[in-house]
Amino acid sequence: MKTISIRTSKRNELIDITNEVRRLVRESGVKEGICVLFCPHTTAGLTINENTDPSVRLDISDHLSDLVPERKSYKHLEGNADSHIKSVLVGQSLSLIIENGDIVLGTWQGVFFCEFDGPRNRKVLVKILEG
Amino acid sequence: MKTISIRTSKRNELIDITNEVRRLVRESGVKEGICVLFCPHTTAGLTINENTDPSVRLDISDHLSDLVPERKSYKHLEGNADSHIKSVLVGQSLSLIIENGDIVLGTWQGVFFCEFDGPRNRKVLVKILEG
Amino acid sequence: MKTISIRTSKRNELIDITNEVRRLVRESGVKEGICVLFCPHTTAGLTINENTDPSVRLDISDHLSDLVPERKSYKHLEGNADSHIKSVLVGQSLSLIIENGDIVLGTWQGVFFCEFDGPRNRKVLVKILEG
Repeated sequence: MKTISIRTSKRNELIDITNEVRRLVRESGVKEGICVLFCPHTTAGLTINENTDPSVRLDISDHLSDLVPERKSYKHLEGNADSHIKSVLVGQSLSLIIENGDIVLGTWQGVFFCEFDGPRNRKVLVKILEG
Repeated sequence: MKTISIRTSKRNELIDITNEVRRLVRESGVKEGICVLFCPHTTAGLTINENTDPSVRLDISDHLSDLVPERKSYKHLEGNADSHIKSVLVGQSLSLIIENGDIVLGTWQGVFFCEFDGPRNRKVLVKILEG
Repeated sequence: MKTISIRTSKRNELIDITNEVRRLVRESGVKEGICVLFCPHTTAGLTINENTDPSVRLDISDHLSDLVPERKSYKHLEGNADSHIKSVLVGQSLSLIIENGDIVLGTWQGVFFCEFDGPRNRKVLVKILEG
């Protein structure tokens, strides 16, 4: 298992970690298999989407905040109930396919760490399975 | 493949199954690999979130009901269209990493079965892959 | 890695690909393992839900459009910001369990490709791992 370390700078933010994932897969020497990414935080998530136009990630982040407002009469009193709910909507684990020693992504796809309660030091766990 | 059996007691409810998953992984004897959890129901799901403050799971469940109301002019006439939609938002499969004979979770994380159309007898399928 | 090709016919549509996934798993000859499905598009997704009553998939598609309207002051100017956001909510990868040479699904479950910006030619990537 490998770890990607991330320093986020805003409360809500999508950070492109595609290059870090690619580097770990290349370094593993595995040519065919799967790559499982796991977010060990309860107020963050992982997703895959467009990493060309940076406005896409802003629209995703902003619309999630419209769907799950920060201020509401939540039962959890630490001020980040919205962050926990967004984490559930986005998800915490991803399974990617490895071919020819690299993860397979569509032309416009990148892997994003989704921060919903930053800024914080975060990490993503990476497991590479040959097969 | 192993099975975890669950008896839910409410229409909407998040049930912590972390200990059951941990036990199955320990019993498998697998030290390194991945653990795939699968929910074979169309009105339930699986997620990972905080299992310390019980108010977090209530906020998640309540807010999902705000986003997907039980009563609305749905086309599906069995009275549980909302349950199907929540299942899609939360997801049906999770991939966890196994290290040192145990699943790897963050400090505050637990694995939850999400009931959206209970009370019912439910199950979660567990596949452990060494590697 | 195998590929399932799909021709979608509407802007928003859930298409049942269960039989195609089953066929690929049978043809692989793998009896026990996992099957990872991956959507290489940024305005589509993959989910599992009921494939008996066709009104369920319509309710899912319609309610996602209620949650993420097509018209809103998004920053992304290509007219499909909503499609990207729906893709994040539904997810891009699924892990299924293989037993006795077939994927394990609940009685009412089918695998769906979720089109959010069609009509288009799409594909789903399939990786089968023995174990």
